[in-house]
Amino acid sequence: MTDFLKLAVPGVQKLAPYQPGKPIEELEREYGVHNAAKLASNENPLGPSPQAISAMASSAKDVWLYPDGNGFELKQKLSSKLGVSPDMITLGNGSSDILQFIMQVFVTSDSEVIFSQHSFAIYPILTQMMGATSVVPAAKEWGYDLEAILAAITDKTRIIFIANPNNPTGTWLTEAEIASFLARVPEQVIVVLDEAYFEYAIDPATEASGYPDGLQWLEKYPNLLISRTFSKVYGLAGVRVGYGISHPQLTNLMNRVRPPFNVNSIALVGAAASLDDEEHLARSVATNAAGLKQLMRGFDEMGLGYIPSAANFISVDVGREAAPIYDALLYEGIIVRPVANYQMPNHLRVTVGTEIQNSAILTALKKVLA
Amino acid sequence: MTDFLKLAVPGVQKLAPYQPGKPIEELEREYGVHNAAKLASNENPLGPSPQAISAMASSAKDVWLYPDGNGFELKQKLSSKLGVSPDMITLGNGSSDILQFIMQVFVTSDSEVIFSQHSFAIYPILTQMMGATSVVPAAKEWGYDLEAILAAITDKTRIIFIANPNNPTGTWLTEAEIASFLARVPEQVIVVLDEAYFEYAIDPATEASGYPDGLQWLEKYPNLLISRTFSKVYGLAGVRVGYGISHPQLTNLMNRVRPPFNVNSIALVGAAASLDDEEHLARSVATNAAGLKQLMRGFDEMGLGYIPSAANFISVDVGREAAPIYDALLYEGIIVRPVANYQMPNHLRVTVGTEIQNSAILTALKKVLA
Repeated sequence: MTDFLKLAVPGVQKLAPYQPGKPIEELEREYGVHNAAKLASNENPLGPSPQAISAMASSAKDVWLYPDGNGFELKQKLSSKLGVSPDMITLGNGSSDILQFIMQVFVTSDSEVIFSQHSFAIYPILTQMMGATSVVPAAKEWGYDLEAILAAITDKTRIIFIANPNNPTGTWLTEAEIASFLARVPEQVIVVLDEAYFEYAIDPATEASGYPDGLQWLEKYPNLLISRTFSKVYGLAGVRVGYGISHPQLTNLMNRVRPPFNVNSIALVGAAASLDDEEHLARSVATNAAGLKQLMRGFDEMGLGYIPSAANFISVDVGREAAPIYDALLYEGIIVRPVANYQMPNHLRVTVGTEIQNSAILTALKKVLA
Repeated sequence: MTDFLKLAVPGVQKLAPYQPGKPIEELEREYGVHNAAKLASNENPLGPSPQAISAMASSAKDVWLYPDGNGFELKQKLSSKLGVSPDMITLGNGSSDILQFIMQVFVTSDSEVIFSQHSFAIYPILTQMMGATSVVPAAKEWGYDLEAILAAITDKTRIIFIANPNNPTGTWLTEAEIASFLARVPEQVIVVLDEAYFEYAIDPATEASGYPDGLQWLEKYPNLLISRTFSKVYGLAGVRVGYGISHPQLTNLMNRVRPPFNVNSIALVGAAASLDDEEHLARSVATNAAGLKQLMRGFDEMGLGYIPSAANFISVDVGREAAPIYDALLYEGIIVRPVANYQMPNHLRVTVGTEIQNSAILTALKKVLA
């Protein structure tokens, strides 16, 4: 038989897919535990807005029709909420779609793509898929070393990914840091400012002092793409909807490679309804701020180090190889995220849950570490 | 300002996105008509299975969790229904996702991709996006000329797309024709057998005599990929779910480029529930067979030619340039599909609707042509 692996394009020959957090059903199926808690994928433990649930449930009967490929209504709502014109918005099947589109537009096998050590796993996967070269400057105290990133730019650099706050470290860059960085990036290099956790970080109740709204730089820098998502604070991870905001010319190029019906009808309805429920958003952000404090207090009491976070997760240093701790927590019915693949072998990334879930993970961690 | 179009990869510089059928809301917004009927995108006018609607509505509250990236339950169901192992199944955000994955795995800017004249618009768009070369043998009486396709194969050919039945012509290839074709394709060239309309064509009540189930060839031809969808007869176009069936090695390669959460949770639930409702499937197929006959009778009475179809649509020859007829039908509140971009300037593609919708399009067409 033909060896199809050898016929595959070079990028795909060496490509290992993204490893998602373990789904609850899979844990229950494989480990025989019940009522498991998943604190592994930075989902909103309060779920989506009740208004969104109700709008999505009502729309189930309408799904025989293809979605509106232009996402007219959702783009209108985003446009008026964010104060950008609809031709600056690209809708994605999750914001990872947006990250892939920008790669498809600009990256070839000759390109270099820059992102920091300890940053989101999708960046190197997409780079590998395109057969391009990942350039990965070392992090500084778990966060981005922007000077090192600037120094790594070459003629082949097409895209720089900056996650703010960063996943899985939770670290953030300030307004002054990003402003100075953008001013020094050559104008033909695209900067993707990945703001998946924006709504958490911008909350004054977190400790992310100086955390900026990236939209302020769009007018000045046409090479800037901001990506955001409904998967995190809006609680819509399961229906897949994210968006990019960029100069109309960039947006036009991204919409050329966007599959015509990438965002499904139920997601369009759910996301639009979510934007109307500011109370649920505020409650979700407040629950997170309180939960972060609860977890930090718990870690402090156990004498465990952690990385201060501006997001809805926190990476805790268990003081030894974390993989066996991850496994032991599974038997306790708790799924967290091992981050050895992020060169953080002693850390576990814990999503902030409800007060009860946060207590449960702290209790389980105490038991497992004892 | 930097001209980002010039920085884009060559394929994207010349890429024009797919033009979907006009959404009903858009027609009503722009033309001021009400109660419009969309017979433009080959959707199932009976909608999804009631069991699927109810399962999807109930699952709306669960969408705060990411989907199961492996689609465990849906793959299990497909596996037992189709008699193939789960490691031969790739799930897509619609079957167009499957078509894109196979391109991403094998096609570079040096490659050639073959498909027939008058075949599905996504094939040339994906080829252009990859910067590859489309090779498009002429059709024969609106259908595929398999001899011409075989003759077009070169050392650079990576993929051949065969839609059976074909969209937008509705023409089909027989078991004997495909068997002989597959035997003559070099084993390193991938054949994509696009069976989006399979369930309609396999129905003995259509006139698609000799129409085959492509699964029979999977064991013999590891270079064969079959794609199917829940968007057509299953009435789930709005939630986006399709699948590919292929040798495990091909399937493994496609799953490398598949985004980890490409199929959303509600789609996974809806598709699985749909597979349980064989009665709704049978009713949908029977409604289509009756509707096709109704439309053909109507066209016959009006003296209009049409292409015999094995699918849930039919392309009618209006005997003159079809674009103004399409426009006039919009004012009558009926959306059909102009197919001039398929080199069929005098045809309109009409989706088979309910009996009432079929009467409405026949009446409107009579009025508009008069």
